[in-house]
Amino acid sequence: MGADGRHRLQLCPWQLPRTLQIREVGPRDGLQVEKPLSVADRVRLIRALADAGVRHVEVGSFVSPKAVPAMAGTAEVVEQLGRLDGVTRTALVPNERGARDALATGVEELTVTLSASAEYARRNTNMTLDAALRELEMTCKLAGEAGTPVDAVVSCAFGSPYEGDIAPAEVREVGEAALQRGATVVTYADTTGMATPARVAALIDAVGADVGLHLHETRGTGLVNAFAGLTLGVTRLDSSIGGLGGSPFATGAAGNVATEDLVHMLDDLGIETGIDLSRLLRASAVVAEAVGHELPSAVARRGPRLSKPSQYT
Amino acid sequence: MGADGRHRLQLCPWQLPRTLQIREVGPRDGLQVEKPLSVADRVRLIRALADAGVRHVEVGSFVSPKAVPAMAGTAEVVEQLGRLDGVTRTALVPNERGARDALATGVEELTVTLSASAEYARRNTNMTLDAALRELEMTCKLAGEAGTPVDAVVSCAFGSPYEGDIAPAEVREVGEAALQRGATVVTYADTTGMATPARVAALIDAVGADVGLHLHETRGTGLVNAFAGLTLGVTRLDSSIGGLGGSPFATGAAGNVATEDLVHMLDDLGIETGIDLSRLLRASAVVAEAVGHELPSAVARRGPRLSKPSQYT
Repeated sequence: MGADGRHRLQLCPWQLPRTLQIREVGPRDGLQVEKPLSVADRVRLIRALADAGVRHVEVGSFVSPKAVPAMAGTAEVVEQLGRLDGVTRTALVPNERGARDALATGVEELTVTLSASAEYARRNTNMTLDAALRELEMTCKLAGEAGTPVDAVVSCAFGSPYEGDIAPAEVREVGEAALQRGATVVTYADTTGMATPARVAALIDAVGADVGLHLHETRGTGLVNAFAGLTLGVTRLDSSIGGLGGSPFATGAAGNVATEDLVHMLDDLGIETGIDLSRLLRASAVVAEAVGHELPSAVARRGPRLSKPSQYT
Repeated sequence: MGADGRHRLQLCPWQLPRTLQIREVGPRDGLQVEKPLSVADRVRLIRALADAGVRHVEVGSFVSPKAVPAMAGTAEVVEQLGRLDGVTRTALVPNERGARDALATGVEELTVTLSASAEYARRNTNMTLDAALRELEMTCKLAGEAGTPVDAVVSCAFGSPYEGDIAPAEVREVGEAALQRGATVVTYADTTGMATPARVAALIDAVGADVGLHLHETRGTGLVNAFAGLTLGVTRLDSSIGGLGGSPFATGAAGNVATEDLVHMLDDLGIETGIDLSRLLRASAVVAEAVGHELPSAVARRGPRLSKPSQYT
């Protein structure tokens, strides 16, 4: 019996981490495809997430308000939010100019996306990989001067709707190029939901487990891919409150893996995230009200399996 | 490189079976919560599934048409269907009388449900476990005389909405009692979607891997629980075309794990099921038209990750 009075699994058949770092991307990746919310609503939502124990949150992006209207006013969001004790506030930046704006607000991390798919990059940002790496390098230089880490998020890392599968070695080259240009860490993103446990295994085999994974539920595989990653030693995952999200540029993309669904599973596996599920479900209700529709998350819709932790772990 | 010209994973990090037996339960567990379909539509649907390579299908149940109107006429379904080469036709029976009716049609397997939750059993069938075991014993006697195997499906095996968690040792006792009364095999069912990989591990630790699993997507965990089961040696899973289903008696129950989503993942893991995904998606379209609404299955809604198998497995 554990210190908390719960029976422990006699035999945990998988090698799982004891703790998992969740980066909540709903306020950026989730909201960017919704009708624009007010700055006040965005701030309220992020505070509700922090109150639930979220310790890392992508608060918005510094992109063109014409391209992504819902992300206009991210500087105001960060300003009104202020520093949150123990919380890393991340902002997505598309280029050096965005990086400058983001760093001026005092966020604690930048994310920059690169694409493993040339065609996705062309349609999404009209940039070649070389051009994107040059922007990344300039962003990393600025961020380095401010002492701010940069996470390079490699999109289409598990397949592209245009090119099909991309060899893990090619995907790795994109991540390595990002690290050479000054990125602090790399996250591999399943932008259009093409990952399966087989793809996760192949990529982790190529890049190692010291990476973040950003997974989508397009084909219902978000949670199983997250679990597959955990069994392979991954300890950093992106997820989105309510399962909101999907790229505004990718046909057939659907929501991110839902933070509620992920925490619900992790709680029962005994993996610590620092997040309190019942508070998270209150934040989820705030989000549903703000966006004005039911959320994709199954646990948000149907509630957790038990109100109390299981006796039989 | 494999014989089919595909690159193989250098290192498959999990112990996975090479083949998986899928029992398609859509025509029973799926359709029982839909508006009643005609016998002709039910036959057409089962034939479409068999054409896709489904080798085991629960064709209906012999329950009271008052209790479950959508299952009225199952004898006619089996009669019009006839024997299907290489396909095991299964029928659910609630008692000795249903068993007699089912066996008269010539189905190749019977399923009988028992509950690990006393309160679920009381509400669902108004029977105690002892009474259910007596019915099972009589069913197994009849089935044994006909040379027909009986699968005892233990509901609420991963938790009950009434009692909460049920100790794996107690769940095992129900399965063992069923085998003692003459059941051929046991399937453990996540009737209300309370399973997680931790619950799957705990139960398999108690009962061994030579069991079937019947999983639901109520809380988004159907596919991850299936994968967890595979890594622990399970080789028999129930799934439902389109993800249709859910118990008509359990509040908050939602659909079974979708056959499309399962086969889509298994294909990419290189696990053989005998089912052709593109034909299965055609069967899925037949089902959606028959039931008159979009299906829950993510792969049915958004299509497979690639039209051709990956080059990089």
